[in-house]
Amino acid sequence: MTASQGEPLDTQERYSRAALSCLADPGDPVMGALLRSVPPAELLAAIVSGPPNAGSTLARSAFCDSGPALVAGPVADRAVERWRMRLPDVPPASRLAAWERSGYRLVGPGDAEWPTQLDDLGDARPVVLWLRGRADLRFACLRSVSVVGSRAATAYGTHVGTEVAAELAGLGWTVISGGAYGIDACAHRGALAVVGCTVAVLASGLGFGYPKGHDELFGTISGTGVMVSECPPERAPTRPGFLVRNRVIAALSRGTVVVEAALRSGAINTARHAQELNRPVMAVPGPVTSEQSAGCHELIRTCDATCVTSARDVIEMVAPLGDDQRGPAAREPAVPADRLDPVTASVLAAVARRAGRGPATIATLAGVDLDTALRCLGLLAAAGHVERCEQGWRLRAA
Amino acid sequence: MTASQGEPLDTQERYSRAALSCLADPGDPVMGALLRSVPPAELLAAIVSGPPNAGSTLARSAFCDSGPALVAGPVADRAVERWRMRLPDVPPASRLAAWERSGYRLVGPGDAEWPTQLDDLGDARPVVLWLRGRADLRFACLRSVSVVGSRAATAYGTHVGTEVAAELAGLGWTVISGGAYGIDACAHRGALAVVGCTVAVLASGLGFGYPKGHDELFGTISGTGVMVSECPPERAPTRPGFLVRNRVIAALSRGTVVVEAALRSGAINTARHAQELNRPVMAVPGPVTSEQSAGCHELIRTCDATCVTSARDVIEMVAPLGDDQRGPAAREPAVPADRLDPVTASVLAAVARRAGRGPATIATLAGVDLDTALRCLGLLAAAGHVERCEQGWRLRAA
Repeated sequence: MTASQGEPLDTQERYSRAALSCLADPGDPVMGALLRSVPPAELLAAIVSGPPNAGSTLARSAFCDSGPALVAGPVADRAVERWRMRLPDVPPASRLAAWERSGYRLVGPGDAEWPTQLDDLGDARPVVLWLRGRADLRFACLRSVSVVGSRAATAYGTHVGTEVAAELAGLGWTVISGGAYGIDACAHRGALAVVGCTVAVLASGLGFGYPKGHDELFGTISGTGVMVSECPPERAPTRPGFLVRNRVIAALSRGTVVVEAALRSGAINTARHAQELNRPVMAVPGPVTSEQSAGCHELIRTCDATCVTSARDVIEMVAPLGDDQRGPAAREPAVPADRLDPVTASVLAAVARRAGRGPATIATLAGVDLDTALRCLGLLAAAGHVERCEQGWRLRAA
Repeated sequence: MTASQGEPLDTQERYSRAALSCLADPGDPVMGALLRSVPPAELLAAIVSGPPNAGSTLARSAFCDSGPALVAGPVADRAVERWRMRLPDVPPASRLAAWERSGYRLVGPGDAEWPTQLDDLGDARPVVLWLRGRADLRFACLRSVSVVGSRAATAYGTHVGTEVAAELAGLGWTVISGGAYGIDACAHRGALAVVGCTVAVLASGLGFGYPKGHDELFGTISGTGVMVSECPPERAPTRPGFLVRNRVIAALSRGTVVVEAALRSGAINTARHAQELNRPVMAVPGPVTSEQSAGCHELIRTCDATCVTSARDVIEMVAPLGDDQRGPAAREPAVPADRLDPVTASVLAAVARRAGRGPATIATLAGVDLDTALRCLGLLAAAGHVERCEQGWRLRAA
């Protein structure tokens, strides 16, 4: 059986999952359905060496004691055939290990850093995620909002997207986006401008880093936030991959804001994923004379998206009832202090209640190096324990 | 008893109503409640000559056989006292007659030109209306939309307001607004630009014509549409009068569109009246950076106003199901041809089915003068029988 939540994956299982993720397209529901019951190593072995009817045998054996098979035999057989043809693309375990040594983290369901909200995707849940960056993904996404929109952003959208993202990040919300040109880039940059946490979910492998023009941006994001991909690091993006990636953006966050989008736009697709996941969908209005706002207006008009004009409006939609809405006094940390790891807890203990302290002082008091202190402070801010102030960092009023 | 719908008011009743409308503030619910049962002449006589408890006597006598009095005795007494103090302001019948001779029309409930949808205002229904202009008010409002907004309109709002109004008027919808600077003026001008029908509801008397800078606009509106006021022609506007007037704008039309409005704006007040009357409330989005769109976004966010970006969106909200929405082929005239007056019917008969005819030809064929032909064509367009085309006018496809 596969590892359940809280039971970290062993290397073999993670590598098997990584291999399976190279065989199936991201979001392949047949892979998801089989992985619900068949251990990854067993599934991989069956694809590598199994008979022509390996798929239906797996589907039958997996579901025999839990009712009818959820994947029809012929469907499973055809899927296994398809996957088998991609076996030459699977990187050897030595390559996976090399990637891990060079800073890529491979996480799967059951790992501590796995964001459990991805389970809402059902059989379309990613098989694994590749991560790079200082922030802990699960931690960062506890209080997060996706801010997405057109690549062909206008000056208006660029301005509003940056402002909303900066304000959200300043209030301790992680900004998730797709790393594309236009609104996505504004969302990331707005969060970075206030030293907030931001997460970029790419359709390419993280080493490939599409678009190339964002190499520096992605480097900066890795410095404080985290880069995410379903694909192994060197994979180039595919056209359908962008749309499939959008489900991860929608599933990671508490809600999705579309800042600017034409009537046909990938951002609309992300909004639809959020809607299917029962996450709040929000859209920023704009001039009715702007084609780049037409998609937002359509979402508001016909898809029940909420019209939002500021970060405050957004938080009202995504914050748990009674949280940020009633001002800082009502905020509860997303993770209780007694569930923090010892290093983060020591950094939290070094933060003063009222007067701010600089990160160097905090590092000294906590007995950690400056890098560790900064990383922990980012996590603590995302979790709602600390906030930035003029003098550095202070505890958030309880 | 007062005249019921379809039974035209005699001169005495109309003049009594006109006098009462000078005594009570527009929308005074006590006046409305008493007029539900007490004939206007009797009510006026009681105010002029009655004892101190005239009000409570009227309230009692009016409701004695239809359950408990709807106006408490002391309330009615105080109202009559208040009204009595204004008796010197009541113009003599000779003045009313002089106004009528000079082109002002005095209409009350029961008159053919009275728009029965005003009854939805209950006791706040206007006591009378003063009209001036070529169009028939009841006819013009059958297919009408209120287009309102800030006086401090931006270039964006001016552009969008004019466009939406022109498109609505071009599709045979009457555009109702308040005659103010800014969006109201754009709404009227947009309708006039396509020789459509427009109705201006003023808070001042029509002879006073506030704002003065719109004298020429009001003259143009009278030429093809109609000017409306609850006040006698020479009355100056009062500050509360503007807000009270808004209920008439909302009640006359099938729905209200706010094009631009700051958070505190009279247009928001009109929208609230429309909402109370269960008429669709619509708002045009704009840049979130514009204060003049903040009221519109607030209406969409918190008051369930529909986000509209074009005349098409507006018509979708106000047209009867199956009407304009499905294109011209599905449109039904608002008034059946067999209920038209003989002159209008003869003009309709002179309009060709497919090829357009100029108004001069139509006038000749119908045996009426050009002015009459133009007036009737406006009415027929508002009622959905004819439409403009390159060559002049033609029948609308059934």
